[in-house]
Amino acid sequence: MNDQLTHFNTQGQAHMVDVGEKHFTHRIAVAEGRIDMQPQTLEKILQGDHKKGDVLGIARIAGIMAAKKTADLIPLCHPLALTKVDIELTPQTSTASVHCCVSVETRGQTGVEMEALTAVQITLLTIYDMCKAIDKGMSMEGIRLLQKSGGKSGDWTHPATS
Amino acid sequence: MNDQLTHFNTQGQAHMVDVGEKHFTHRIAVAEGRIDMQPQTLEKILQGDHKKGDVLGIARIAGIMAAKKTADLIPLCHPLALTKVDIELTPQTSTASVHCCVSVETRGQTGVEMEALTAVQITLLTIYDMCKAIDKGMSMEGIRLLQKSGGKSGDWTHPATS
Amino acid sequence: MNDQLTHFNTQGQAHMVDVGEKHFTHRIAVAEGRIDMQPQTLEKILQGDHKKGDVLGIARIAGIMAAKKTADLIPLCHPLALTKVDIELTPQTSTASVHCCVSVETRGQTGVEMEALTAVQITLLTIYDMCKAIDKGMSMEGIRLLQKSGGKSGDWTHPATS
Amino acid sequence: MNDQLTHFNTQGQAHMVDVGEKHFTHRIAVAEGRIDMQPQTLEKILQGDHKKGDVLGIARIAGIMAAKKTADLIPLCHPLALTKVDIELTPQTSTASVHCCVSVETRGQTGVEMEALTAVQITLLTIYDMCKAIDKGMSMEGIRLLQKSGGKSGDWTHPATS
Amino acid sequence: MNDQLTHFNTQGQAHMVDVGEKHFTHRIAVAEGRIDMQPQTLEKILQGDHKKGDVLGIARIAGIMAAKKTADLIPLCHPLALTKVDIELTPQTSTASVHCCVSVETRGQTGVEMEALTAVQITLLTIYDMCKAIDKGMSMEGIRLLQKSGGKSGDWTHPATS
Amino acid sequence: MNDQLTHFNTQGQAHMVDVGEKHFTHRIAVAEGRIDMQPQTLEKILQGDHKKGDVLGIARIAGIMAAKKTADLIPLCHPLALTKVDIELTPQTSTASVHCCVSVETRGQTGVEMEALTAVQITLLTIYDMCKAIDKGMSMEGIRLLQKSGGKSGDWTHPATS
Repeated sequence: MNDQLTHFNTQGQAHMVDVGEKHFTHRIAVAEGRIDMQPQTLEKILQGDHKKGDVLGIARIAGIMAAKKTADLIPLCHPLALTKVDIELTPQTSTASVHCCVSVETRGQTGVEMEALTAVQITLLTIYDMCKAIDKGMSMEGIRLLQKSGGKSGDWTHPATS
Repeated sequence: MNDQLTHFNTQGQAHMVDVGEKHFTHRIAVAEGRIDMQPQTLEKILQGDHKKGDVLGIARIAGIMAAKKTADLIPLCHPLALTKVDIELTPQTSTASVHCCVSVETRGQTGVEMEALTAVQITLLTIYDMCKAIDKGMSMEGIRLLQKSGGKSGDWTHPATS
Repeated sequence: MNDQLTHFNTQGQAHMVDVGEKHFTHRIAVAEGRIDMQPQTLEKILQGDHKKGDVLGIARIAGIMAAKKTADLIPLCHPLALTKVDIELTPQTSTASVHCCVSVETRGQTGVEMEALTAVQITLLTIYDMCKAIDKGMSMEGIRLLQKSGGKSGDWTHPATS
Repeated sequence: MNDQLTHFNTQGQAHMVDVGEKHFTHRIAVAEGRIDMQPQTLEKILQGDHKKGDVLGIARIAGIMAAKKTADLIPLCHPLALTKVDIELTPQTSTASVHCCVSVETRGQTGVEMEALTAVQITLLTIYDMCKAIDKGMSMEGIRLLQKSGGKSGDWTHPATS
Repeated sequence: MNDQLTHFNTQGQAHMVDVGEKHFTHRIAVAEGRIDMQPQTLEKILQGDHKKGDVLGIARIAGIMAAKKTADLIPLCHPLALTKVDIELTPQTSTASVHCCVSVETRGQTGVEMEALTAVQITLLTIYDMCKAIDKGMSMEGIRLLQKSGGKSGDWTHPATS
Repeated sequence: MNDQLTHFNTQGQAHMVDVGEKHFTHRIAVAEGRIDMQPQTLEKILQGDHKKGDVLGIARIAGIMAAKKTADLIPLCHPLALTKVDIELTPQTSTASVHCCVSVETRGQTGVEMEALTAVQITLLTIYDMCKAIDKGMSMEGIRLLQKSGGKSGDWTHPATS
């Protein structure tokens, strides 16, 4: 693996790295994270459905829309045409949390790790927003890349999960 | 504290809550989070300065800009004119992490909790982006509201810190 | 009522009208519209819920977010801090259509008619997007302002409804 | 034609559909709509030119810019690099309305129907904005897709026009 | 006048300055700039009207819309609700250039100098874009603040013009 | 060279030019500009580093992010996936100014001249913003395209520099 911070040029100045010579390949990234809450908060979320308070459905939409805004939010990130975004939300009653797993794909010259992580963050943040009236102490934990494939650096899986 | 999810109306449909009757008060929110990494990654960050790779300076700018985009990212969040955003980044060599603390203020009709949390998220994510070439396994942890003041619901401090 | 197009100055050049002398008043606007479709398309929508295809819930979120982007879309529209957005979607089986009614409020120096109309448009368009795989011929009809209140020009109700 | 709402996965959860396997083809979409108004309002518009109140010229620009924001507005819409946007505005004195016809093209993996419809909507909405000081009762009608070509689902023409 | 760069805190780190204690006053800023071109290019522009190539009308719209995006573009700029934007474009045949003068107003806690300058820049840049097929060598010159009023620092006029 | 303003169709109406038949080629654009200031202002900037007031580092980030927003700002500009953005800032003590040179690349169907010029403008404007508390009279000068390569119109170098 590279031991340089590639977002800086040889003078150490930030730049948007040249990816023009990279190949258009099928790229996939999967990221995860969770939000911990009071058991009563999770209960409220679980009672919801589209007739009455669909917290998870709204959070999923926010996450998908955020994935499309990644290059707007992360200064040195290349703009990319995403070909797929999928967000899976799993309520976990044993730990009073909601787990979020996002998978993003493109055919392009750079990877989609940042898009997947951005979607995880904004999905969890939207859950926070919708429940904060009853539980301000929720915390977001374990937001990280799980795996990526495609591109010159090849496939990668998080050491803790492989 | 309320026991209802206020982002839904009595039919359980999502809406942007009416805040028109709320008072314009001085509102402050403080949020925190951290990103854990390999010790060598933190070392690289610490070597940086504006001549060679100022990771933290760039992440701080990304966080400030993200605070201004909160209402664009979080579906039911009210647009707000922020009057102050301050981001403090503290490298912690003992745990190989960077801690981020954001303070946001406004004079307005709704709180700025979401703005503070959004800034924490995007600040940490920008650190991830700039270091991912050398450390893809970094994880973002403990992102939560620390305290808020102002508004009808009054002052609040996270139980774990008070 | 004025008989001039106020978005132009005395030379006929477009400008963003000076509203600085206007009062901060409570302003409300209500707008409506509908999307006509095949009866089977409406049936599909009605089968949906948050477990399987909540078309209307997603369209409502898109409409609320679009209301916040109005000043970005309409060239001479003033930016405004909305205090409330409410979207009501009513499936009408007799006519095979979905009716949309949006109510927007602010305390500010200009009205929120454009915000209400923008929300109607994007809500209906999102329904179109989600159903176009099965019904490309849907059409959007009767998009208009129903009423407004607040501001110097006072209250107004659409002649056809009063 | 498909009888499923493709924007939902097999669990019925919203996702951004995977288009990665689709071919890059030349895709065209044509959409239309109109805004009905008082005869005097149309007269005012017709008097305008770039020296004094060019309503239609400004609406056309707003529509072109809106086409580029479609993926930002419509939650599950894929971002696309448009290669052409053309907007034709035709005042119709017999019916006191302005007709809008938009043609959008791309070479890509998904169609541009949504971009064409978004452009129609925001073009008409901008006409409304610029004339609302003299005519709040205008209504937008008949916004629909006229035809599309390219892509796996092939060519399509609105039944009412073919 | 201050001799500190106020966009940095006492540790020299960038922050969005606290303006919460500032008064809501009527604030005005006027900025100017020009674009120099080939005489034939200016001639083409002058031939234009809304029937055939209204370069200046389109540039004016772009400038007004850009003023509203200032806080999105300039990292430490506070978001502001503008109450007026006016753009005057003056073709100058003697020097083969177009002069642009922008006036922006608000009632708020910070000045609108950046909004006025941003509008000048994007107005000129849009002229460049529309004429670059026939004159790539155009240059933008003399972009500066002419005067401001309102706020604690009071009135100011550019030394070269007072 | 063309002697028509290509952003208008044969009726003289603005449109987004059809680039669908153009080739995907490697395209480069280089643009420059400078900001003139008081000698003491430049001194302040030169004292800065990432520990205390890194004006140039922040301006560079703003410029890179602005390049990605070009199609949002310039009405008839095509959206493009940039593959490289590089910004060089050179303080010039002899003239009390900061010179900015931006190089942008893509593999696409249209050139990146507008992206390079937008980046120059917003970079200089951010320097203005950060120093305006001590020097409101700064002016931005000589913003122009230096060279471009790629595409049907081929290579071009500014006459004044070749």
